[in-house]
Amino acid sequence: MELFYSGNTDGKTVVLEDDEAMHCVKVLRHRAGDMIHVIDGKGTLYSCRLASCSPKTAEAEIVETIQNWNSRPYTLEMAVCPTKNMDRYEWFAEKACETGTDTIVPVIGDHSERKTVKTDRLRKILLSAAKQSLKAEIPEVKEPLTVREYVGNMKDSGSLKLMAYCFEDEDTPRISIEEALRGMPASCRSVSVLIGPEGDFSREEAETAVRNGFIPVHLGQSRLRTETAALAAVFAVYFHFGSLADNLDSGVKAYLDD
Amino acid sequence: MELFYSGNTDGKTVVLEDDEAMHCVKVLRHRAGDMIHVIDGKGTLYSCRLASCSPKTAEAEIVETIQNWNSRPYTLEMAVCPTKNMDRYEWFAEKACETGTDTIVPVIGDHSERKTVKTDRLRKILLSAAKQSLKAEIPEVKEPLTVREYVGNMKDSGSLKLMAYCFEDEDTPRISIEEALRGMPASCRSVSVLIGPEGDFSREEAETAVRNGFIPVHLGQSRLRTETAALAAVFAVYFHFGSLADNLDSGVKAYLDD
Repeated sequence: MELFYSGNTDGKTVVLEDDEAMHCVKVLRHRAGDMIHVIDGKGTLYSCRLASCSPKTAEAEIVETIQNWNSRPYTLEMAVCPTKNMDRYEWFAEKACETGTDTIVPVIGDHSERKTVKTDRLRKILLSAAKQSLKAEIPEVKEPLTVREYVGNMKDSGSLKLMAYCFEDEDTPRISIEEALRGMPASCRSVSVLIGPEGDFSREEAETAVRNGFIPVHLGQSRLRTETAALAAVFAVYFHFGSLADNLDSGVKAYLDD
Repeated sequence: MELFYSGNTDGKTVVLEDDEAMHCVKVLRHRAGDMIHVIDGKGTLYSCRLASCSPKTAEAEIVETIQNWNSRPYTLEMAVCPTKNMDRYEWFAEKACETGTDTIVPVIGDHSERKTVKTDRLRKILLSAAKQSLKAEIPEVKEPLTVREYVGNMKDSGSLKLMAYCFEDEDTPRISIEEALRGMPASCRSVSVLIGPEGDFSREEAETAVRNGFIPVHLGQSRLRTETAALAAVFAVYFHFGSLADNLDSGVKAYLDD
């Protein structure tokens, strides 16, 4: 199944532009009358019939609209400090999209060596990953902000807020990410995870985060690189909600009390 | 903490060779008398004092030997079909090592486009990943064999044998990988996971695997690339045994009945 992306629709027709039109018309040689599938990047899939084609633009009539196509039963925001080598961050973004992530926030920590992120490039990678992994939702990439700004903004968020850090001698004991997930109220289906830079968070950042409701967690016994730690968190959340579904299937419905 | 690797020791001294000696002496400028840490790639860490140095070889006296350094409470073998793009397989190998994997077996399926794997290059990547993630054990890379040969060889293995595949209309219903892990006997601490190629296993391969004791599993609702699916399995096993440890910490010791 081949997916195209369009952010340009009036509910009756969708318009493919630029690379998407080029790929549809020039590369795959679709012609007027062909059926194609288009995502809007926000969770909706359109089945459409191509009406007019040029390598620069293609218009298609919507035949069927499926909202929340291939959606997940949770939302996940990953606030991750950029790695020194951006390839590693881009790799994380691709895998996070495949597995299931709604928002990626590049955050800059006190100990971050890299202070900038090319968000446009990340968005292109995520568009491609979403189409490849058959998702109608493309993770949103926020513009970079500091760890302090991020945790400040999150103060009143209703999501489960987790922060993975590595301090050996911390005052606040950390629990495992799975324990934190198991402890979340059944009515909460929204998780935010903050992952620090290679040099970890500063004490002040960690304290500010805890004051703003972040729970310090660890990701098990292995020493993971920043991007691997971030993906570990994505998988922990993915498997957590997968297990909830298993339990529901097995009749353990009491787990969800709402 | 900087780790060096040596496969050359008599229990009293270790000898660093080639790249390892070069890195120790030329790059990091260690001199006789300096303390260094050396792994044997099989789980042992040596604290050593450098006795003699040249850029081609360096000899060090063992001061302390720590067996099973940073070891895991389980063993994991990942038999994974090579991806078309080897970068993706190498990426998987690096992350599998970081997270915790004992053996990587490149297996060739009926639908594999790529039939060969440069195992030497994989071994170099794993050596580097093991040192970077502070592991004394370097995952072993087996020489490639076919899926049929592999499942035949595994017939009498005592490990939990899982096979992830994607058939939509399968006869054998699949369970989630976590459900399969939760169902394993508490005395079993060894898991083998078989991951197919981009084109999935053939029916015959899947049937042969099931006849040889492999349990068909799925990895949740997302459509994952081969290398992402393989890493998802590594994380599922990692978190499963991490959760067992959590439960032990919380006093739920009855979980382990042996």
